Amino acid sequence: MFQAKARAEVLKEVVNVVSSLVDEAKFSVNADGLTLRAVDPAHIAMVDLSLGKDAFEEFKADETEIGIDIDKLAQFLKLAKSDDIVDLKHDEDKRRLNIVVGDITRRMSLIDTTGMSDPKVPNLKLDAIITIKGEDLIHGIRASETVSDHIALIANPEGFEMSCEGDMDQVHFRKSKKDLVSLESPSSVRSLFPLEYFSNMLKAVSSGTHVVLHLGNDFPVKMEFTIAGGKGAVRYLLAPRIESGD
Amino acid sequence: MFQAKARAEVLKEVVNVVSSLVDEAKFSVNADGLTLRAVDPAHIAMVDLSLGKDAFEEFKADETEIGIDIDKLAQFLKLAKSDDIVDLKHDEDKRRLNIVVGDITRRMSLIDTTGMSDPKVPNLKLDAIITIKGEDLIHGIRASETVSDHIALIANPEGFEMSCEGDMDQVHFRKSKKDLVSLESPSSVRSLFPLEYFSNMLKAVSSGTHVVLHLGNDFPVKMEFTIAGGKGAVRYLLAPRIESGD
Amino acid sequence: MFQAKARAEVLKEVVNVVSSLVDEAKFSVNADGLTLRAVDPAHIAMVDLSLGKDAFEEFKADETEIGIDIDKLAQFLKLAKSDDIVDLKHDEDKRRLNIVVGDITRRMSLIDTTGMSDPKVPNLKLDAIITIKGEDLIHGIRASETVSDHIALIANPEGFEMSCEGDMDQVHFRKSKKDLVSLESPSSVRSLFPLEYFSNMLKAVSSGTHVVLHLGNDFPVKMEFTIAGGKGAVRYLLAPRIESGD
Repeated sequence: MFQAKARAEVLKEVVNVVSSLVDEAKFSVNADGLTLRAVDPAHIAMVDLSLGKDAFEEFKADETEIGIDIDKLAQFLKLAKSDDIVDLKHDEDKRRLNIVVGDITRRMSLIDTTGMSDPKVPNLKLDAIITIKGEDLIHGIRASETVSDHIALIANPEGFEMSCEGDMDQVHFRKSKKDLVSLESPSSVRSLFPLEYFSNMLKAVSSGTHVVLHLGNDFPVKMEFTIAGGKGAVRYLLAPRIESGD
Repeated sequence: MFQAKARAEVLKEVVNVVSSLVDEAKFSVNADGLTLRAVDPAHIAMVDLSLGKDAFEEFKADETEIGIDIDKLAQFLKLAKSDDIVDLKHDEDKRRLNIVVGDITRRMSLIDTTGMSDPKVPNLKLDAIITIKGEDLIHGIRASETVSDHIALIANPEGFEMSCEGDMDQVHFRKSKKDLVSLESPSSVRSLFPLEYFSNMLKAVSSGTHVVLHLGNDFPVKMEFTIAGGKGAVRYLLAPRIESGD
Repeated sequence: MFQAKARAEVLKEVVNVVSSLVDEAKFSVNADGLTLRAVDPAHIAMVDLSLGKDAFEEFKADETEIGIDIDKLAQFLKLAKSDDIVDLKHDEDKRRLNIVVGDITRRMSLIDTTGMSDPKVPNLKLDAIITIKGEDLIHGIRASETVSDHIALIANPEGFEMSCEGDMDQVHFRKSKKDLVSLESPSSVRSLFPLEYFSNMLKAVSSGTHVVLHLGNDFPVKMEFTIAGGKGAVRYLLAPRIESGD
């Protein structure tokens, strides 16, 4: 059983996070709220999202799984204004999610979740922890996008750097410790990542949000930020690329 | 003879109405104003538009017909601001319409109207009459657009409904009598229509306009609304689809 | 040696001017500022741009040439706000231009300028001189764009006209002497030009700018306007088309 009401804005945030990696997703609900774990089709990135029941206006659920076509949900939510209340009800018999906004009801067929895996979040020890304003990170990524397909994330005790080196051009984005929200980096660390994935992950970061990056040496990066005014949490993991010695 | 001045805004409304169904159109003018009747190439929908001479700033005409390439006129009007005065003059000898806006004159070749038919508006007895805010109707259509190619319009003494049922999903838009401008529906009626046509017809509805729908059982729908601040009238007719018994 | 700081807005104006004709350009710098002369690949149009050192916030240069990929520079400048200070430094050893905006550094490979020609500005005697508001000229061009590929520029003692005659339609844009900023046209002159080129040249005209056209009879047109608040000057030359006698 799952039955909830939420502001459209909150559901749009969830959809933005999930659609950065997958088209279809299995949401797990229980009495405490909703969680989702998904790996992209190329197995390069993982998202781990949780939305507490207090992020909803009303929330009642037993433990169940709901498979959703994210594009369809996104499309429907486009019709709703940020403050509109969206009414969600799981029709278990007909395997549908019934969504009501104002005068409009959409009955949406659910996706079969039996084949969908439950990815495990790996336990990683990442030494450097960088907290940075979301808009700064986004600005740095925009500047890098035309130069190369890869981006190096670098931290040391003095600051944080994103570095993008193409055949012709280079882009460097540097923030010294004082211009970051916070920085813990006992040593120098550096890992290389596919730029497009990293850029996609930032699409769901709202303006004004702080992003926490956990970084190691040739290790995955962990990116964390909150949604729904702090009542939801997002964690992304992105696998590193091996740097050639050239 | 045809010679008139109109605010660009008024002509843009006319162009919006006509372009929803046809690319080329024959306008009939006489001393009282301008009328147009056209059927779309697939013979599924008809538009019947009239614009009284008091919708114009100046208007002088003998009875004549003017064949216009609607795209060209639309393009030219894009250059004009809503309040600009557009000067129209029919050059019968050169078979052109001369249009002046400010410093710019466009001499537009007219289309030969000899082959263009004069569709008759069928006399239909449609029991249900629904008056609804244009923006409500548009909102309901937007929600339906991704679910199916057809939309059912339904009325009964209690209210009005648009229903769209695809293989996977369903969308229902319901307005009870009290949320409509007015409703006369002695019995239950329902007809099915091609969604794209119905959606196109709404493109010319200005915000704040009331739309009147005349509806029967497996009958065409008649849609009426005014343009040019009430000095022009638009009537669309759209043929129904036969519902399969599945 | 070349080392300068400029407001992003000023560099964006330069990029707009140059990109209307070429993708790659050779800038000549010396102690007084920067100049550029380029001819489009089809040898139909020439641009001659100069930007004095007082258009910059800081400027230090010996005589040198810098070959720039205009698209890359444009892309990078999109990330900067109008008032951002852009720091430019020529790295002669690595043949790069290093550009810094805020926290972001881009090291841009320069283009080899050895093969790039130094076009000479021809000495033309053009009798008519028309000064017109940039937005008027742009409005006239927009109206002409769908009618034909060519545009005739016409001046006589009474006024200025742009005339565009297609197979079907004609567009005329006329400004009498009193509606122009100024007009000197001792006789009647007329030349025909490729519309797309003329239109492109206007892309870099800021709102509020006066454009000076020098016109003759079947001669190139010279178009002049200022950039960077009067601290830079742009001159375009566009070759005429021969009018067929039809």
